[in-house]
Amino acid sequence: MKQSKLFTKTRRETPKDEIAKNAQLLIRAGFINKEMAGVYSYLPLGLKVLKKIENIIREEINAIGGQELLMSSLHPKENWEKTGRWDSLDVLYKVTDSLERENALGPTHEEIVVPLAKPFISSYRDLPFSVYHFQNKFRKEVRAKSGILRGREFIMKDLYSFHSTKEDFEEYYQKAKEAYINIFDRVGIGELTHIAFASGGSFSKYSHEFQTISSTGEDVIYICKKCSVAINKEIIDKQKECPECEGDDFEEKKSIEVGNIFDLKTKFSDPFGLEYKDIDGNRKPVLMGCYGIGLGRVLGTIVETLSDDKGIIWPKSVAPFRVHLLSLDQNQKSKEIYDDLIKKGIEVLFDDREGVSAGEKFKDSDLIGIPYRIIISEKSLKSGGVELKKRNEDKSDIIKIEEIISKID
Amino acid sequence: MKQSKLFTKTRRETPKDEIAKNAQLLIRAGFINKEMAGVYSYLPLGLKVLKKIENIIREEINAIGGQELLMSSLHPKENWEKTGRWDSLDVLYKVTDSLERENALGPTHEEIVVPLAKPFISSYRDLPFSVYHFQNKFRKEVRAKSGILRGREFIMKDLYSFHSTKEDFEEYYQKAKEAYINIFDRVGIGELTHIAFASGGSFSKYSHEFQTISSTGEDVIYICKKCSVAINKEIIDKQKECPECEGDDFEEKKSIEVGNIFDLKTKFSDPFGLEYKDIDGNRKPVLMGCYGIGLGRVLGTIVETLSDDKGIIWPKSVAPFRVHLLSLDQNQKSKEIYDDLIKKGIEVLFDDREGVSAGEKFKDSDLIGIPYRIIISEKSLKSGGVELKKRNEDKSDIIKIEEIISKID
Repeated sequence: MKQSKLFTKTRRETPKDEIAKNAQLLIRAGFINKEMAGVYSYLPLGLKVLKKIENIIREEINAIGGQELLMSSLHPKENWEKTGRWDSLDVLYKVTDSLERENALGPTHEEIVVPLAKPFISSYRDLPFSVYHFQNKFRKEVRAKSGILRGREFIMKDLYSFHSTKEDFEEYYQKAKEAYINIFDRVGIGELTHIAFASGGSFSKYSHEFQTISSTGEDVIYICKKCSVAINKEIIDKQKECPECEGDDFEEKKSIEVGNIFDLKTKFSDPFGLEYKDIDGNRKPVLMGCYGIGLGRVLGTIVETLSDDKGIIWPKSVAPFRVHLLSLDQNQKSKEIYDDLIKKGIEVLFDDREGVSAGEKFKDSDLIGIPYRIIISEKSLKSGGVELKKRNEDKSDIIKIEEIISKID
Repeated sequence: MKQSKLFTKTRRETPKDEIAKNAQLLIRAGFINKEMAGVYSYLPLGLKVLKKIENIIREEINAIGGQELLMSSLHPKENWEKTGRWDSLDVLYKVTDSLERENALGPTHEEIVVPLAKPFISSYRDLPFSVYHFQNKFRKEVRAKSGILRGREFIMKDLYSFHSTKEDFEEYYQKAKEAYINIFDRVGIGELTHIAFASGGSFSKYSHEFQTISSTGEDVIYICKKCSVAINKEIIDKQKECPECEGDDFEEKKSIEVGNIFDLKTKFSDPFGLEYKDIDGNRKPVLMGCYGIGLGRVLGTIVETLSDDKGIIWPKSVAPFRVHLLSLDQNQKSKEIYDDLIKKGIEVLFDDREGVSAGEKFKDSDLIGIPYRIIISEKSLKSGGVELKKRNEDKSDIIKIEEIISKID
């Protein structure tokens, strides 16, 4: 894409009302727009990153058999009354329709997915299966000061699995855990992300959270010095010892919860009477698991953990473009290289803007954070080619034009 | 995909509370689930169709320079007060957040896109550009009896264009019109779809609607017998003559509005002070256009217009799968053919279900409506191959296995 055509521009100043680093950088670089506290729109650059994260998640969830669907945002009140959450869930947005009927705006989708699945489950032969979607969630958060880490509106991948036996559930839960590890690896925050034991709510002893170490995180985790397992604050306050190895020496770290996986048992099957007939014809409740990842939160966490004082440093897997091509004074030659890279299927942002200084182009490029920067100038061409610099390294090299492809893998 | 793994099943009975043909067929075939009146979830088969429609629209809108973004569903009340629509728009859902501030649930996005674009427009050099998104819309419809043709919640592609001059706007408006013609052609309803003159609201004399002839449509259009242009009811009631050729003999047809394009002039630029500096340094209001297509409505219109009494007949471009492979009694051979087609990149739904009669498989296949049906049975293999039948033709042929690829283009 030609930068001269991109309708957004970078901004020098940090938005006054924005204290979170992720939102400050993303707004300045033109990735998101703040509509109000906790509500953001994704601009073209931001949407490109969001879609790449979405696609990595989709591939990993498809690989464990997830069937993608798309559930509604408006939920009937009755469903939420059935589970007792209409009155108990503080964050539930409620709206009234034209016939004065009340609806919830989905903050999560158990109340929809269970009745949706019910007509398709009669026998144990119909199980197991799992379904997921990428859908907006709405939560009346009291605090919304963490940029896109905690939104009142945010896109989440939520996966729900349905099982006849505990063993089958547990096997799937393990698979989901591995898929999550793959996802966080692939989006570039694998090394910083720990599986942490968390409270399982009323039904299971533990659930698991995926926590990414970050100095700006709202959560605190305790990493067991003996076995390296992590534990969240709730658990350590309760039991003061490692659930894995019974060690009692921990390192405290701030972290961001980027995903969680949860054994629901029959918490939601029961109120909706979600049952199956086993091989002997006995009716039994379906066992369920749920597995969430907030896409904006992952995006924001990447920015929180992988930026420097000049701007964002995108991992290749989710970068809006692979190459940022900067034309300083050689637009014709740059145009040829741009066309050639596009032809070869490389995603390129081409800074072809005229009347913008080299210094400004470098600053913008650092801020936007594309992995490879190629600079074309009279000087570089005289030195025999183009200048190649990685966003996450300080040094740059002069390489021959025909070497570009082999250097940007 | 193996049908034995698909969690949805077809239903024989028509849902009692559903009077619209599109929703009846889509629910019976397992494409959608009704959550309540006007609110539907897309099941895996339905989502596949929706995504194909989305992708066709994306390609055509990208081709006219649209930049994709994703604007929020929660809108600040102030924005809607600025345009005077907070109190005047009946269909506006209003919600209250945790701090008792009121928000609108976006029924359309002018109130968001204009302030979003404003910081990026200062000079005529920043214009023109256009942005679009695929996003849920929420409208408190009083009537919601048309299945997915008129939802309280529905996904819409809305495109907004920004211009400095009337000529530039008009040029883009023509391009958008052509993109729309391409879109409706590509999704398979081009022949049934007419461009109709409609009321332009308070600012322009005419806007244009894309109306698809359908006996179950809620709209009525009048096709001029002299010049073939269509006119909507509002216009014909007002002027009784064709705006194109002044003819006065019309054919009345019921139709479904599948898209519209609209000259906004400065209707939304004015309240937000969206201005640019022209070449002489004078501040002028930005001219805008908006261009909408409801994705669910397009999907529903395809079902309304292209089904028969056995079920849906999907056009190839949007079908959930290209081939429905029915294994009657030869699962091993079928599996080989399935694997081979998948390897060749063909989208196949493989009816590998055991204990389901041939008759049931045929009925399900007719209902689901995939363009090509390949039947593999002992009988067909004895006759030298497999049986190939198109969903929209009655006859079937025995073809050799190695001919399959060449016959399903």
